[in-house]
Amino acid sequence: MSVKRPLIFVTNDDGIFSKGILSLIEAVKPFGDLLVIAPDKPQSGMGHAITVNNILRLYPYMLFEGVKAFTCSGTPVDCVKLGMYELQGQKPDLVVSGINHGENTSTNVLYSGTMSAAVEGAIEGVPSVGFSLADFDANADFEGAINIATRVIKSMLENKLPADTCLNVNIPKIPANDIKGIKICRAARAFWDDSFDKRIDQYGNPYYWLTGEFENNDKGEDTDLWAIENGYASIVPIQFDMTAYHAVSELNSWNI
Amino acid sequence: MSVKRPLIFVTNDDGIFSKGILSLIEAVKPFGDLLVIAPDKPQSGMGHAITVNNILRLYPYMLFEGVKAFTCSGTPVDCVKLGMYELQGQKPDLVVSGINHGENTSTNVLYSGTMSAAVEGAIEGVPSVGFSLADFDANADFEGAINIATRVIKSMLENKLPADTCLNVNIPKIPANDIKGIKICRAARAFWDDSFDKRIDQYGNPYYWLTGEFENNDKGEDTDLWAIENGYASIVPIQFDMTAYHAVSELNSWNI
Repeated sequence: MSVKRPLIFVTNDDGIFSKGILSLIEAVKPFGDLLVIAPDKPQSGMGHAITVNNILRLYPYMLFEGVKAFTCSGTPVDCVKLGMYELQGQKPDLVVSGINHGENTSTNVLYSGTMSAAVEGAIEGVPSVGFSLADFDANADFEGAINIATRVIKSMLENKLPADTCLNVNIPKIPANDIKGIKICRAARAFWDDSFDKRIDQYGNPYYWLTGEFENNDKGEDTDLWAIENGYASIVPIQFDMTAYHAVSELNSWNI
Repeated sequence: MSVKRPLIFVTNDDGIFSKGILSLIEAVKPFGDLLVIAPDKPQSGMGHAITVNNILRLYPYMLFEGVKAFTCSGTPVDCVKLGMYELQGQKPDLVVSGINHGENTSTNVLYSGTMSAAVEGAIEGVPSVGFSLADFDANADFEGAINIATRVIKSMLENKLPADTCLNVNIPKIPANDIKGIKICRAARAFWDDSFDKRIDQYGNPYYWLTGEFENNDKGEDTDLWAIENGYASIVPIQFDMTAYHAVSELNSWNI
């Protein structure tokens, strides 16, 4: 008796040429039929951006053996939408995004193209997950991340994700055998202390690079940052309804 | 006796040349000293994107009489960060964003550059608000929106916003005198039914425009969409912690 294999979309924000997406394909390939649609250039920090004032291009990509793949000129969220509404014409059984080169813990979910692709999947009602390895190196060691991704994807296909959520998975930068386990977490209350590196171009005009330090004053041991700093992979369930319900009654007391 | 005037940052996502930001400046100018930092080109749909792989440029903009203003080559969130960490070197008393040409109700908060600037203000601990008029016309009538913005800004300076929230204000496309009032709302559970307009370029190659219909199946009369469809301005309090707390216990029952 044959069973229909799940249809799984794969995307990322580092671009189709990154080691991270190749690692994710390795993790997810045993579980279903893949459609890879990934940006043709790095899209880090693109958050939930979509391309509304420009055209989008799609080109077949032949370098993933036995896997249907396309490069996209747009953002990670564009990739998810193009997969569903143009290339495949149907919703997949799973959207997987990553594996990002660099962690996406805490408030970084908002800035992260990797996680925004997963959030877009959730908005479409599809079980979705973003994976990030806490290592920015283009040639990072993804062995531990592949192991964790395999376990999470297997669980997602066996269980029903709570409605209107997706998963944010972060993997620490330690050897695969040293990862102590997986913890379900909340996002740490941590923020960027930004600064700008001001430089002068060859014409004497100033330009700026965004830089900064990520600062965590959240001492909770139930946070994603605590987990990856203590040898665990973290999973945070993420919702896309940003209404601050607890604030509605207080605002109703204002005399606007 | 002199009282220190509030420092107010103004930004938007339609660009510094739009009628919407000029209207917002008109509304907010009586309340404080302004610093305007707005994109030098339209940035609609940029969500919470930040510029990490490219440089940023800032140029003084002289066309707002008596108001210190700069154009920025980046996104609305870049504008907020540049104001705090480079131009002013301090946090303002208020961040105002808009007035957007087009509504930003429901899940559109995620895609909206206007609202992401306000969310960034909230992340920085500054009372912040985004305004959107449900009219895409470049020459839309902003009179009603200016009235509403004036009332909301006055209230924000008189009251303390609940911690870690900002406000999403939408104004209906009706004459100023017909606006029935202001309602505190939750975000409607409504979604884009996307499609792509596939066209062929002069070389015979396909390209795509993102398009679609916004579909609301949420019958609640406490939503932002209900409000603006029924003649009210809507205010939704927005939070930036996307953790789905209610899902943590369920995920802990999975055998990952």
